[in-house]
Amino acid sequence: MLQNELTKRLQIDYPIVLAPMAGGVTSSELVAAVSNSGGLGMIGAGYLSPDQLRHQIKEVKVLTTKNFGVNLFVPSSYSVDEQKLTISEKYLHSIELELGIQKTTPSLPNYEQDIETFEKMVNIVIEENIPICSFTFGIPSEDIRTKLKQNASIIIGTATTVQEAIMNEEAGMDAVVVQGSEAGGHRGTFAGGDQQSLIGLLSLIPQAADQLSIPIIAAGGIMDGRGLLAAQCLGAMGVQLGTAFLVCEESGANKLHKEAILEAAEDEVVLTKAFSGKMARGVKNRFIEKLHGAEENLPEYPLQNELTKAIRKAASADKNPEYLSLWSGQSPRLAIKLSAQELVEKIVNETLKLKNTLS
Amino acid sequence: MLQNELTKRLQIDYPIVLAPMAGGVTSSELVAAVSNSGGLGMIGAGYLSPDQLRHQIKEVKVLTTKNFGVNLFVPSSYSVDEQKLTISEKYLHSIELELGIQKTTPSLPNYEQDIETFEKMVNIVIEENIPICSFTFGIPSEDIRTKLKQNASIIIGTATTVQEAIMNEEAGMDAVVVQGSEAGGHRGTFAGGDQQSLIGLLSLIPQAADQLSIPIIAAGGIMDGRGLLAAQCLGAMGVQLGTAFLVCEESGANKLHKEAILEAAEDEVVLTKAFSGKMARGVKNRFIEKLHGAEENLPEYPLQNELTKAIRKAASADKNPEYLSLWSGQSPRLAIKLSAQELVEKIVNETLKLKNTLS
Repeated sequence: MLQNELTKRLQIDYPIVLAPMAGGVTSSELVAAVSNSGGLGMIGAGYLSPDQLRHQIKEVKVLTTKNFGVNLFVPSSYSVDEQKLTISEKYLHSIELELGIQKTTPSLPNYEQDIETFEKMVNIVIEENIPICSFTFGIPSEDIRTKLKQNASIIIGTATTVQEAIMNEEAGMDAVVVQGSEAGGHRGTFAGGDQQSLIGLLSLIPQAADQLSIPIIAAGGIMDGRGLLAAQCLGAMGVQLGTAFLVCEESGANKLHKEAILEAAEDEVVLTKAFSGKMARGVKNRFIEKLHGAEENLPEYPLQNELTKAIRKAASADKNPEYLSLWSGQSPRLAIKLSAQELVEKIVNETLKLKNTLS
Repeated sequence: MLQNELTKRLQIDYPIVLAPMAGGVTSSELVAAVSNSGGLGMIGAGYLSPDQLRHQIKEVKVLTTKNFGVNLFVPSSYSVDEQKLTISEKYLHSIELELGIQKTTPSLPNYEQDIETFEKMVNIVIEENIPICSFTFGIPSEDIRTKLKQNASIIIGTATTVQEAIMNEEAGMDAVVVQGSEAGGHRGTFAGGDQQSLIGLLSLIPQAADQLSIPIIAAGGIMDGRGLLAAQCLGAMGVQLGTAFLVCEESGANKLHKEAILEAAEDEVVLTKAFSGKMARGVKNRFIEKLHGAEENLPEYPLQNELTKAIRKAASADKNPEYLSLWSGQSPRLAIKLSAQELVEKIVNETLKLKNTLS
């Protein structure tokens, strides 16, 4: 149960994966601590530059000799809608004035450049012999998949519907992270509608398991042994935990972010497109409320993400959680401040104990 | 595991409860079959008249000597917004024209009368010595709770957030149905916001379990032994199944409704206020699509429910599933056409088998 096909393939002791939270949350200390505790540490490289990624890989290698992985965002193409840009800038400018931020002209992302960066990142994963590479927001090209597999890297996709899970299996992924509606941060949806891809794990896992032969890693709201054993009952082999590790001592998340989660109730965690243009789940704050009515008129990801950068940076410097993205899953009441090792041990012990009460 | 405090209190063999689906789905045959199979049959009396309820109770008593229960909707007060009525009537009238329905003037519901009817229903539950009475859409008055408890009836509430679950426990409920975002049909939300009360069961059950001492019955997307055992891992004692029983042979659901579920995928099941003014989950069809843009401008429940009655009735007569409310949870891929007894046996066997593979 704790050792299975997935742990064997990933060469880890327990089927507990660190969710590859981007934006500095998966610090080298956190990645290494999860791997050293018998789980799988993952670098959330979504917003890193190639140089930063190489640097962090080298850092983690100093801190652990165990397997760890890297997660990459598959670049999204997008169209620029001038009207939406104008609407967003109007909202954001009033907030910038309020926060005393000098108006800046954000550099808009460039899809061709994103693809180039993505390929560089993949090459770094290969050069550094990273054994596990996972992907969010889509399925990488066949070239990239083949290249990684030739390097003996295990590749893992992300899905929010059964159909997306099937697409990952058909693309030759070795495993798939199945992200339930409970999950914090960005939705990994890439082929479905925003609303229709919000499937609770209790529904999503068994329906995906019935269609797949590759191992399923369940993600969304799982924080303890109850969640791990439940996910396995439903047909998952392992679990990927974000929020639970985000509040850990080693995590690189902003202190205000950790505090917001530790104080939140499950119904204070909401879905929003306000920060990035892509649906994501986090603790409700003033920024989300202010942009609430405009959500469907905001520029797409990653445009809106660039536009809100200055505000998030200033809010962080000002220690103002009302304008930070406070990503969280739907189980904030289960968050506890521990070290990553204590958390992994706690989950393992709870799972074993719970299993015995069932028998 | 299959026998616990909940089954002992409800005097049933297995912790499997028939969701009290209103509108004729919980036929006397279905209620009795679930109870005769060792689960708990429930009459969904939400839309029944007092006479109809008494008649059905007598019918079920002929078909089973086992315990069964009744579910009542706690009446909702509402305000009449003339503008919203006009908007709704405009949409509905164009559909009525399309379906060739003579324009009718629906009788608007009356809150005082609803309260009176509700009290009559409670009296019938008492007079007929129904041992279990559950409630949806709120918590009944202290008078009613006391009256039922004096009659030795077990009372069960419905909650969609931890806070609503706590309110039910504080009101002296003997157990609480915790309805996850996966659930089909109407949301039981009565104290929270529509969106913020959409909590996946994997998050909702453990967070509720940590705060409650009364038994939790999990509802939403559970269709098989995997779901039952997972719910128990998370802290529930039992499960309440709607969609799984709706497609059973004995269910009174429209044949078109059963077929729609049996053919649907998990991402074709959506949330809508179009049919009743209250958020509910069902298979997407033309009626939902047509009213999609207007949802926030529709009259509240139960007004909209009255306004759409003629359309639903005509669609049923015409065998046109595009204008019926095709309520379903998020696991339609797990639906199988069986008898209720076969379904209960299947779930029990799967649960026992799965438990053994974990040990």
